[in-house]
Amino acid sequence: MGLLKNIWYVAGWSDELADGGTIARIIAGEPILLYRAEDGSPAALHDECPHRFAPLSSGWIKQGKVQCAYHGLIFDRRGRCVHNPHGTAVSALDIRSYDVVERDDFLWIWLGDPAGADIMSIPDMSMLASQPDQTLIRGYLHAAAHHQLMVDNILDLSHADYLHKEAARFADSSDDPSLITPRYPNPPKVEEIGDRLSVKWLSERATPIEIWQRELPDPSADADMFSEVVWYPGGAMALLTGVNQSGKDRSAAAFSPAVHAMTPETEETTHYFYAVKRNYRVDDTAYHEQLATTLVDAFSNQDQPMIEAQQRRMARQSFMAKKPALLSIDVAAARARRIYDRLLLSEQSVAT
Amino acid sequence: MGLLKNIWYVAGWSDELADGGTIARIIAGEPILLYRAEDGSPAALHDECPHRFAPLSSGWIKQGKVQCAYHGLIFDRRGRCVHNPHGTAVSALDIRSYDVVERDDFLWIWLGDPAGADIMSIPDMSMLASQPDQTLIRGYLHAAAHHQLMVDNILDLSHADYLHKEAARFADSSDDPSLITPRYPNPPKVEEIGDRLSVKWLSERATPIEIWQRELPDPSADADMFSEVVWYPGGAMALLTGVNQSGKDRSAAAFSPAVHAMTPETEETTHYFYAVKRNYRVDDTAYHEQLATTLVDAFSNQDQPMIEAQQRRMARQSFMAKKPALLSIDVAAARARRIYDRLLLSEQSVAT
Amino acid sequence: MGLLKNIWYVAGWSDELADGGTIARIIAGEPILLYRAEDGSPAALHDECPHRFAPLSSGWIKQGKVQCAYHGLIFDRRGRCVHNPHGTAVSALDIRSYDVVERDDFLWIWLGDPAGADIMSIPDMSMLASQPDQTLIRGYLHAAAHHQLMVDNILDLSHADYLHKEAARFADSSDDPSLITPRYPNPPKVEEIGDRLSVKWLSERATPIEIWQRELPDPSADADMFSEVVWYPGGAMALLTGVNQSGKDRSAAAFSPAVHAMTPETEETTHYFYAVKRNYRVDDTAYHEQLATTLVDAFSNQDQPMIEAQQRRMARQSFMAKKPALLSIDVAAARARRIYDRLLLSEQSVAT
Repeated sequence: MGLLKNIWYVAGWSDELADGGTIARIIAGEPILLYRAEDGSPAALHDECPHRFAPLSSGWIKQGKVQCAYHGLIFDRRGRCVHNPHGTAVSALDIRSYDVVERDDFLWIWLGDPAGADIMSIPDMSMLASQPDQTLIRGYLHAAAHHQLMVDNILDLSHADYLHKEAARFADSSDDPSLITPRYPNPPKVEEIGDRLSVKWLSERATPIEIWQRELPDPSADADMFSEVVWYPGGAMALLTGVNQSGKDRSAAAFSPAVHAMTPETEETTHYFYAVKRNYRVDDTAYHEQLATTLVDAFSNQDQPMIEAQQRRMARQSFMAKKPALLSIDVAAARARRIYDRLLLSEQSVAT
Repeated sequence: MGLLKNIWYVAGWSDELADGGTIARIIAGEPILLYRAEDGSPAALHDECPHRFAPLSSGWIKQGKVQCAYHGLIFDRRGRCVHNPHGTAVSALDIRSYDVVERDDFLWIWLGDPAGADIMSIPDMSMLASQPDQTLIRGYLHAAAHHQLMVDNILDLSHADYLHKEAARFADSSDDPSLITPRYPNPPKVEEIGDRLSVKWLSERATPIEIWQRELPDPSADADMFSEVVWYPGGAMALLTGVNQSGKDRSAAAFSPAVHAMTPETEETTHYFYAVKRNYRVDDTAYHEQLATTLVDAFSNQDQPMIEAQQRRMARQSFMAKKPALLSIDVAAARARRIYDRLLLSEQSVAT
Repeated sequence: MGLLKNIWYVAGWSDELADGGTIARIIAGEPILLYRAEDGSPAALHDECPHRFAPLSSGWIKQGKVQCAYHGLIFDRRGRCVHNPHGTAVSALDIRSYDVVERDDFLWIWLGDPAGADIMSIPDMSMLASQPDQTLIRGYLHAAAHHQLMVDNILDLSHADYLHKEAARFADSSDDPSLITPRYPNPPKVEEIGDRLSVKWLSERATPIEIWQRELPDPSADADMFSEVVWYPGGAMALLTGVNQSGKDRSAAAFSPAVHAMTPETEETTHYFYAVKRNYRVDDTAYHEQLATTLVDAFSNQDQPMIEAQQRRMARQSFMAKKPALLSIDVAAARARRIYDRLLLSEQSVAT
């Protein structure tokens, strides 16, 4: 298989580079060093000295340049070797630099052919900015699982009804999980928009789950629940989940925008960045704390162990090779895998 | 190589399933979930949801059925999917169930072709039941070694004279281990009975080792020591070791029946279940405590490290490929390996 | 690739075998047991019983013989099986013994064809003995890196100016490491002497680095700094570093002899033995303590992590396959690798 290179990946949070901070992270198999250049803009270099493959991230950054801690070679933000204490800084000592763009509080990196690094194709996560900062809940998890398993988990939100049943506190909850009714009775509407995928779950004129019920003007009246995801092939996903009184304009909805970015580290491990905001109970700090605790617990102690268990079950066999039984809820995940495979095949054909 | 499937394996202790307990254990490479069905009888399922390979053992058991914690599918004890919250519970969602039988305080599982699961071929460990419960010493070890190395260790009991020399406290003991005389001067009598192996060590008219001497009516008179093992190809072994005044009927012997079951987890790891009883010093609780400490120490701190060291020495080469020097004491172990290989070859020929 | 066998390796320190001590160590892939025979001379055996591959190092040593703890076989220092409690001690039970020589406080072992074990080719580390014992600083590190990366680190001492810049406390030091001037302005003089390599760095009529300045009669006058290494293909290196007032006879120099022995454990791991003495501040115990702390910190917390990071970067690709950029400072390391490859090729051709 392999991993896409001609794609924008979330490399980290913008503010990880605040106050002289650096990021040393393997992304899609490439060791990357991120730091801020003298003008404050982010820079990304191959994190490996061409001389003896020492990680440059062990070195020193000064005036936007990186010096290797092993033998003192210095590189500028474009990867050009500008100082060799032991001879001439010939171009054979240059290293790869990468396009990196700061947008929507994320650092986006392009690892592939620089010619294709079109900033217009950076995933749009701007809906996060539209909600107040005090509602932000965000985190990072390092997961021992293929990034596609992590993506699948978001593209099939029906798992929340079971895996996160306590957190979701269903209106029809009971001690018996066998009686749980999925909140979305129908499969989602899935649409390909270029290389993206739009996935829309909708439950109309329903009794909403308890956590949503209490955000409604009239909890006893019918309501519509919705979960909408836009998936990008680099593993970043924009989510919008909410509830609205049936028949009312959606501008009155209580909703929560979120980003879940599953950046492959290797083919077996994933960087998971998540950020969640909301347009309701904006100044309720007690609610905020409780929600943060609940979400972090769900992502770390329910999603991650379950997905890592799947990964262990696959060991030396890929997910598809094990022939999983496809359910109606898998339509989006299956479509995303097809797009991914198509892009990867096309990229690898060109590369050969 | 590979591992036998058409064989009864010890999957665990019966009472591991008491009070709603479950067992999630890999047996001969297969992830297995064991639990009690509504009628109290044990059930065994492939511990993997067919949908996304989530371990069912993370789920919930209700009325003898298992619900996957990831997306809510429910399976009955026969592996039939009886509930799919997201569509129809079609037969493509069924999973493998396994024959499991409760006998002699063990759970026996059959992983292979169900047609061959003859309960008459379950190893007979009933001699344990014949001795009083208060003499029971039992335990479980997880060993990083091939199950056959673990089996070899029991089939060649001569190792006890050296590896467990302190525990055995020989009559001819001294500070110098080079002076130790093996308690059995002759190789054992080995006999194939179907696919089983009967191994009988005997030392007649000898001065018994100290731990046996004190169990004799006349410690100064000649005695016979015996160790008898029945090996079954699934790795379970029934042992009988004891001492008897020479010339007397064996019904007067002091003896200890034991089970050592070496169930392969994978080709490099083994579940080791052991249970020991005795017909002497039955109500001597101080002796019992000391014996338990000695045995657990011998199995855990002498046998297991030694066998795991052997395994590490083999790394990527099988035991036989390294061409071990065969001694007279290896006759039973060598024979057991031949039977095992024969059964495996026959099973794999059929499977192909 | 592979590792040289027809070469003398440092197997350990002589005094590791004091008071009945033994060494169980994997050297160039071979498990080795070292102990003292009855006459006090060191003996080396293949640390593996031919019967079941138990490590003999788990056993007992008595009168210069080793008894296996598993089934009691006894071997003499030549590897001859002299006692089999279960039958005849036939020659098929003999194991490999190795030539081992005690010299310059080291144990030297020859793993290859015994016919080639010429003690005249044992590396000469006698310059250590010429300095007072109270100046000795020595240690052992187990490194997760190929021994050649460890060797490279010593053959290119220019790394000290950067990686150990605090320890070296340069005269021209500043907060800005980009301003560091390497102490040796020119590449070393490299000479092949048989299979050895002589590497001489020299900085003439220079302002010495601060740690050397204070050892000079006239710190303000010009001085010569020198670092000389003799490399042996088994990974042992004799170093001599020092400073001398320019124009004076070297007999007046302040200097420090050292041994750095990089004995391969496997192709990915290395035993690193180091020993350092000096001819200055011989009785300054405060200086001695501080120097010891500084050196141990440099080797353990600067060199080792950097080299292990290199190794991780290489993963499944050899150093040369990654096509490192060669600098002038790499001349000795590159030459040593060529010699090593030549010897290995010749040895492996003969072996085939």
